[in-house]
Amino acid sequence: MERVRVTYRLACKTAEEARKKAEDICLEQTVEFPADLLPEPRTRFHENVIGRIEGAITAADGGETFLTTISYPVDATSCELTQFLNVLFGNISIKPGIRVDAFSVPRPLVSAMSAGPRFGIAGLRALLGVPERPLLLTALKPMGLSTAQLADLAHQFALGGIDIIKDDHGLSNQRWAPFEERVAACAAAVARANAITGRRCVYAPNVTAAPAECVRRARFARAHGAGALLVSPMLAGLGTMHELARDDSVGLPILAHPALLGTYVLAPGCGFSHAALFGSVLRLAGADVVIFPSWDGRFSFSREECRSIDASCKGTDGSSLPGVLPAFPSPAGGMTLEKIADMREVYLRDVAYLVGSGLFRAGPNIVDNCKLFLSMVQ
Amino acid sequence: MERVRVTYRLACKTAEEARKKAEDICLEQTVEFPADLLPEPRTRFHENVIGRIEGAITAADGGETFLTTISYPVDATSCELTQFLNVLFGNISIKPGIRVDAFSVPRPLVSAMSAGPRFGIAGLRALLGVPERPLLLTALKPMGLSTAQLADLAHQFALGGIDIIKDDHGLSNQRWAPFEERVAACAAAVARANAITGRRCVYAPNVTAAPAECVRRARFARAHGAGALLVSPMLAGLGTMHELARDDSVGLPILAHPALLGTYVLAPGCGFSHAALFGSVLRLAGADVVIFPSWDGRFSFSREECRSIDASCKGTDGSSLPGVLPAFPSPAGGMTLEKIADMREVYLRDVAYLVGSGLFRAGPNIVDNCKLFLSMVQ
Repeated sequence: MERVRVTYRLACKTAEEARKKAEDICLEQTVEFPADLLPEPRTRFHENVIGRIEGAITAADGGETFLTTISYPVDATSCELTQFLNVLFGNISIKPGIRVDAFSVPRPLVSAMSAGPRFGIAGLRALLGVPERPLLLTALKPMGLSTAQLADLAHQFALGGIDIIKDDHGLSNQRWAPFEERVAACAAAVARANAITGRRCVYAPNVTAAPAECVRRARFARAHGAGALLVSPMLAGLGTMHELARDDSVGLPILAHPALLGTYVLAPGCGFSHAALFGSVLRLAGADVVIFPSWDGRFSFSREECRSIDASCKGTDGSSLPGVLPAFPSPAGGMTLEKIADMREVYLRDVAYLVGSGLFRAGPNIVDNCKLFLSMVQ
Repeated sequence: MERVRVTYRLACKTAEEARKKAEDICLEQTVEFPADLLPEPRTRFHENVIGRIEGAITAADGGETFLTTISYPVDATSCELTQFLNVLFGNISIKPGIRVDAFSVPRPLVSAMSAGPRFGIAGLRALLGVPERPLLLTALKPMGLSTAQLADLAHQFALGGIDIIKDDHGLSNQRWAPFEERVAACAAAVARANAITGRRCVYAPNVTAAPAECVRRARFARAHGAGALLVSPMLAGLGTMHELARDDSVGLPILAHPALLGTYVLAPGCGFSHAALFGSVLRLAGADVVIFPSWDGRFSFSREECRSIDASCKGTDGSSLPGVLPAFPSPAGGMTLEKIADMREVYLRDVAYLVGSGLFRAGPNIVDNCKLFLSMVQ
């Protein structure tokens, strides 16, 4: 039977050290038990349970790291996303110098986990009525505005031609704009604008919360006219986002926000590659749109790291997740209209540009600023 | 009104750079908006919404880092654990050189979030009938054993005097020992042993899964005689563990496992201090027992890092979480009986020693090995 395959980048000085580390991973991520203590027949564990080094261990980064591919039996994952992530990087997240570079999941496991986004790029384009051009996203902000002020902003954004208006990811249920009041008002404001423009702009409230409350908010949002959802999966739980994606009573596109995720990619030699985390993991967990900080903004990702996220979101990076739909990369984090020309070179047409504060700075009239934004991506 | 207070460790070269970084955090974690674009009256945002630098920014680590304390209004957290974590470290997890060193939460926010473990140290001692000595924990392993083999192991552990027998954290719902079958068999095996010994050993199955399934498994476990639960909060979601802790229909002590958490503490200059994450965050999220890799085992935490986790679990580290019960530190990750004397110097009596493979290696008879373990902590 096909196995899960993971390529790890190991910070090691010698090939011998890398091999020892790889052998340790094979045990640590499965039986978590010394090989010499395994019950007989031991071959049963080695064939059916324990990870296996596949092929050669190769030097990379000028000899400072080594790449090894380890395969795991599908059975070890229980065909559940949470246990899959545990096999991928659970205990070894606590061992220095191990980074998940890329991984592939066989088709039967993708199916059994019901992994992947519900809409993907083509589905979201159909929903929004935007067949070809980049999508325009913006955020309702700042935290501290009243519901009426946020709804007024949403109305202007929608009039100006934005495709998806999301809550700022910090808006949850604060007294300034409580969740239910805000969702009803902002969804109505967007609907009024759509009636004027004839367009299909959607409002994506932030439903991030503890799991049961998150699902409750998602259903409320659906019932009150929201057209998509914003979730911070590391706050709500990756499994929570995955449940929202699979829940037919919710049935809305999901935008994934990177709050609390950053450490996994920033930590040198630890965590995940940008592509593995933002593309592969978030896509498996149901994200239709993956928000991440693009280069040249308030954050530190490089152009090349962003390019790798783009490829991984679109499934063109060489990792194999058969049956998992591609997701929109959504570059954000201090993007402005001036940066679109440069971004276009990397993200091409299948991109959801998220410009937040930049839309406020572009000029005194929000509607005009949005129209300018739209004109730049036609 | 009292505010949340967070001490961040900033990797900066100069005090001036540290101040700019601190000012940026105040905005990034709340309004996520440039100060000069804030709507009027701006004082309203600065007083009620935005973070505030408290006191001096001081050099640390021989001038390589700076410590700053930033306070946030309780209102920004929506009085929800997920949004509290977002304010604490959401977006700035994606900015290099910022680490959460410690934090304090005012009592009304602790209450409003229903934060903290249900049992704590005293409650768990009462439940187990172990008033004073260290607790003895072990794990059912390796993955790949059948239900009957695991139940037999559980029986021997319980006969030998273990207090809490947990599933290995990799046991979820694999075909070798499916969850429901395993839980029923292992709980029954422990009950049979208790009938012989007159003790109150409990079995703690691993209920880590997507949120709804996790709650379902926890209720099944409760109904079938489990006496505690194992959860990996970073896999299941911190909010999921928090929901389990608050759920009266579950009502069992919770052991938190560090799978996938490691990167947050290993990343130099990023993430969380060991004390803030393992002690404060996991305790807020409902852990009665905090499992972590102790020094001198298979992992890399130092003796001093473990000492800081111990203090934070017990609430003696200077951070203030009023009303949150202390939790047992549970040193693990390659501990053996030979290491207990050394560990005792740090963890004293309020500790839950977790010895897994070490109990298999100590001698041919598991029951005798457990009795030896017990004799060492009397």
